[in-house]
Formats: sequence, structure tokens, C-alpha cells
Amino acid sequence: MRIEGKSYRSVWIDKNKPEVVKIIDQGKLPFVFEIKELSSVEDVYNAISEMSVRGAPAIGVAGVYGMYLATLEITAHTKIREHLRNAATFLCSSRPTAINLSWAVNRVLKNIEGIDSRSEIATMALKTAEEICETEINKCIAIGKYGVELIKNISIKKNGEPVNILTHCNAGWLACVDYGTATAPVYMARDNGIQVHVWVDETRPKYQGARLTCFELENENIPHTLITDGSGGYLMQKGLVDLVITGSDRVTRCGDCANKIGTYHIALAAKDNNIPFYVAVPSSSFDLNISDGLKEIPVEERSPQEVTETEGINGDIVTRVRICSYSTRAVNYAFDITPARLITGLITEKGIIQAEENHIVKLFKNGN
Amino acid sequence: MRIEGKSYRSVWIDKNKPEVVKIIDQGKLPFVFEIKELSSVEDVYNAISEMSVRGAPAIGVAGVYGMYLATLEITAHTKIREHLRNAATFLCSSRPTAINLSWAVNRVLKNIEGIDSRSEIATMALKTAEEICETEINKCIAIGKYGVELIKNISIKKNGEPVNILTHCNAGWLACVDYGTATAPVYMARDNGIQVHVWVDETRPKYQGARLTCFELENENIPHTLITDGSGGYLMQKGLVDLVITGSDRVTRCGDCANKIGTYHIALAAKDNNIPFYVAVPSSSFDLNISDGLKEIPVEERSPQEVTETEGINGDIVTRVRICSYSTRAVNYAFDITPARLITGLITEKGIIQAEENHIVKLFKNGN
Repeated sequence: MRIEGKSYRSVWIDKNKPEVVKIIDQGKLPFVFEIKELSSVEDVYNAISEMSVRGAPAIGVAGVYGMYLATLEITAHTKIREHLRNAATFLCSSRPTAINLSWAVNRVLKNIEGIDSRSEIATMALKTAEEICETEINKCIAIGKYGVELIKNISIKKNGEPVNILTHCNAGWLACVDYGTATAPVYMARDNGIQVHVWVDETRPKYQGARLTCFELENENIPHTLITDGSGGYLMQKGLVDLVITGSDRVTRCGDCANKIGTYHIALAAKDNNIPFYVAVPSSSFDLNISDGLKEIPVEERSPQEVTETEGINGDIVTRVRICSYSTRAVNYAFDITPARLITGLITEKGIIQAEENHIVKLFKNGN
Repeated sequence: MRIEGKSYRSVWIDKNKPEVVKIIDQGKLPFVFEIKELSSVEDVYNAISEMSVRGAPAIGVAGVYGMYLATLEITAHTKIREHLRNAATFLCSSRPTAINLSWAVNRVLKNIEGIDSRSEIATMALKTAEEICETEINKCIAIGKYGVELIKNISIKKNGEPVNILTHCNAGWLACVDYGTATAPVYMARDNGIQVHVWVDETRPKYQGARLTCFELENENIPHTLITDGSGGYLMQKGLVDLVITGSDRVTRCGDCANKIGTYHIALAAKDNNIPFYVAVPSSSFDLNISDGLKEIPVEERSPQEVTETEGINGDIVTRVRICSYSTRAVNYAFDITPARLITGLITEKGIIQAEENHIVKLFKNGN
């Protein structure tokens, strides 16, 4: 997608410098646009845990590129399998909630089984990374194609009046290499001449909505309005929301969805106001090994400082301020679980399905 | 209540300087403790609209003190009734949602009916203000006495383990002259040796939870933890919340409650997790003239800057930062409506009642 008219992906390898992975540093947007070069497994680990790269599909792709970097670290004395298994474990430990990371990293381990030559392993790892990258982008496009139909139908009912879509956090192209999951239907609606307007939850504590989703939508000229995380319900009560679309970091086989903290509140409000609540999610975010989201999805607890301190721009200078007394203690759960019963449907690259076990299992009957 | 061990009220008149109204400037806490002197109706209007004094009961009291200041502005040439009616209208226009303001201001207009002498009018206005002030404090004490029983019962069921109470915004003593509404039961539990712990919603955009409620609880040595507004539901899902108590700015005759934006989400989450959701509210916040909260309570829309800019401390310096791009547009509804059906009960100074018309009307059958 575009930043000031120029096309970017959120994670990529520059053919002229294939020994590093490049990312747009999402921790600095929208105040500073900076491309960060990751040249080791540790760099990738840090970029993911510090959220310079974030969003379930994007960290999956970053992770698999990290495995490629791990293959470049192999020397004549390296115990190759052990080295790569350790790299995989290390990368997966950077953030626990999104399943995409282990899914992508394990894909590399599987693909290099039986290969012994260092250079062939590196080639295979890079090939796997690029395949996953392209596949994820294509999944977003497919999600957009299915999702736009929902928007189109509402637009028709509203006689072409703008369709008001609420989203939480950033499940946009930054989170997904390109196009985005929750945003793909929005971009496609725009491309189809459908009037849309997006309510963007600011998404405390790290303001991914205010900082990233607004940045994306502005660069794509999509009308949007920033709101606090507590506002969605009131907008729904007033009839100002037609549709909710969020992403998800992990979907269980029963359809429970982990997503950025606050999503559950929005899902409850949507249900209470009979507003469709959709989760746009590629197959790489499904975890068929677990059923009960609340009991089985590991929810990351991040630093309390992300709550007690916030960053913004003061004039031209990025400045960190503490929003409460220095002695105040905080907790910072990064995700919550939206139970399947609150979800109208899952927009996947294979179609829109109900958040129910039989539909989900059927979706995967021919593999992921 | 106490600030560093010294007792304060949030609004008061100093007997040695009766021509000004003093307030603790809530816009500056917890970073700067400053007492502000209001010496005109306009000062009071500004203090309320800029939220230097805030919280439904406190702005009611500030408003009635404002009426007293209006009586001091009377000269030999003043058309007294017109002057005071204009002052009342002006004060009531400072913030639209809380009913306490018009309730208190109109009380003065009523009490001075039939009085002609300027000095007697001033005396009566001051007397009314002080009566309302004392009455509001006593209401908070009574709310505490009824509310503490709820906490006590949970404490018994938990065999004395800390009772986890979640609150949103600040319905503490700062919002209510003294003791608070939502916090009075908490303080009384502490006084009764009941172990409590408070989850404090930070309450975007103005961070009344992070800035004021945490400040209050810290000064009263009540264990508490700050959370983002999107976190309450997840804590409830994990069984970490026993009880929700919030305040309200206006309760309709059918029990719908306006309160700080985000309250509705918390009420939905409490309902979904079978957690009791109580609204602690003095009779001065009831509006028996309206029934349907969503249709009839005027919800204030405040400046978008409160969303896009935030204030905090950087070292020792209070600093304002913009949390999104300069071009991002925001909306800022200050309140939402929690429908009566989501409310377990209303903790009033006359007892705990169900949020239902017959109970509410019965409560007021002998007047307010």
C-alpha cells in the first residue's frame, strides 16, 4: 500500500541486499517514517517483541525471514538442525499470542527436512519465506474480495450513503505485509466506488489505531474518525456504526478469537445493538489444536510502562510522558478473547464462514 | 478526604475569604496540587467547562456556589431576578449532561423567591450552597453505608480474600466534595477492616481514572491497579473482578444511567460474566422528568483535542503531546448511556434499589 503515494510492504527483502530483512518501524509511525534493517535472528526477535513489526500475519512473515537469517548464521561447525530449532524456539518466544509466528517458523523447519547443504538450506528458507509472504498477501486480497460484499450489501440498503465501519487496533497492511485483513474489504470498497467511513478505535495502550490505522487510511484517502476505545458502544447506540471488522491473532477450532485488548467490549456492544461483528482472518491465524480461547490461548502480559507512559509528538519532537503518578502500578494484558457466540462471521481467504467448529474444520479439511 | 495526610474537600468557601469559592484544580492533579480561587460566575462557568472542577455532585455544588457569587455581583441598579436567572442559565450551560448542576442552581432560585434585600439574598444563596454541600457529603456517607454491605457479603464468600472492585472514571471524593459516590463503599470497607483492591479504568480521553482515582486511592492507602479502558472485560473473563461500582451523571426515572464514555462497555462485560454492576448515585443525580436515557439525556460532545492530545509529566514538567498525526480528525463524546437492564442496582443515600421505574418513583415519593 502507499505512503505518500509510494508503494511499500511492511516486511521485505531487498534483492540488492539479501542478507538483511527490512521493515517499516511501526513503533515510530506516524511521527517518523524509518526503515529498519534486521540482520540477525536476535534483531528479528527484538523487532517483534518491541513491536517495531507487529500484527499477526506480519510477525509470522518476520519470523520466517528470521529463520532465513538463522540459516545465514550457519558455519562449518554449526549443528544445523539444533541451531535452527533453537532459532525457531527463540523467535516464537518473542510474542506468545499470535499463532502465525510458530506456524510460519515451523513451516521452514519442515521444508528443510532432508536438506543438508548449508546453501540449499538457506535457499529453501528464503523460498519458504517469500512463498509465505506472497501467500499472506494473496490471502488479504481474497479476504478483501469476500469482505467487500458485506459492505456492498449495506451500501445498497443505505442507498449509497457512507457505510460506517468500526475497527479496533490495526489489522491493516502494516500488520499484514500488504492490504491488511480488516482493512482489505475497506480498500476494495473504495476501489469499487462504495462510500465508506471508518471509526478507528485509538487502541490503548499503544495507540495502534490512532497511530497506524489512521496513518494508513489517511495515506489511502479513506474517510475516517478517531475515537477512544470506550466510544464504540455509544456510537452503536446512536446508530452510527453499520459494521465492525477486526483482525485476530489466533482463532480456535471453535471460533473463539484472541485480538487486541478491548475487542471483546466492542463485540459485546455490537451484539447488544444487532450490528454485525466480523473477524477478518487468514488461515495462518487458526489454531485447530485448541478449542476454548479463554482457557487455551496464551495472553501476553506486557510492560506496565506501556500503560503508565505514552508517547506523542510535541512540536516536532517525539516525547514520552507519564500519564499518572510515578507510584501508580498498572497491568497490561495485550489481548482479550472474543467468544465465538459474539462473532457474526469469519472473513477468511476461503470465504466467509460462521465461527463454529464444523464450519472451521470443514474449511481446513484440505489442509491449511 | 486526605491529600498527604491533610483533609480537604474538592469545593469550599474559606470563612476568612467569603467572597471567593475555592476548588482543588482537578485539571492539574496528580502532577500539580493547586487550589484555585473563583471570584465570579464566569470563573465558575470556566472551571466547570474546563473541568477544573468535575464530577456530577461537585459541579452541582460549584454551580450553587456560583449562584452565591452571582448574588455578590448585584448592585443598586441590578434587575435582581433577571440577573440571577441569567446566571443560572449561564452556569447550567457549562456542561449539559449532569443534572446536578441545574438541580442545585434552581434550588437557589427557588429559595430566594420572595426575598428582596440584596444582603438577604446573598445570605440565603450562601446558606443554600452550604446546605447542599453538607447534604451531598452526607449522601455520600449514606451511600457508603449501604454499599459497604455488598462488599462485606462478597468478602465473606471469599473468606476474607481481597474483594476486587472495578470502577470507571472518578466518582470519588474529588467528584463529590467529600467521600465520593462509587468510592464511599470502598473507603468504608477499608474502615471496617475488609480487604479490597480496586481496578481503576484509566478513562480516556482525560484520564480521570489514572490521574484522579489513583491519586485518591493512593492518598487513602487503598490497594489499586491501573488498567486501560479495554481491559475490564478480560479481567472479568479471568475471574479477577467481583463487583463493579461506577457513578452516574444523570439517572432517568426508568433507571438508565449516563456516565463517562466507556461505562456501557463495562456494564455489558459485567452482564456477560455475571458480575454485579452497581451505580452509586445520590438523589441529586436523578431526573424524574425523563425516561429513555438514550433519547432524552443530552450527551456532551467535547473538543476532539482531548482525544488527539494528551498531557503527562516528562521529568518534572507537565507536557502536552499529540498522540496521532496532525491531520487526524477525532470525535469526543464525553458520556454514554447504560440501559437500566444492565444495572444490578442503584446505591442511593436512601438505600439500594433496582434500576426500575416503580422503585425509583417510590424512592422520591416524599420529595428529593
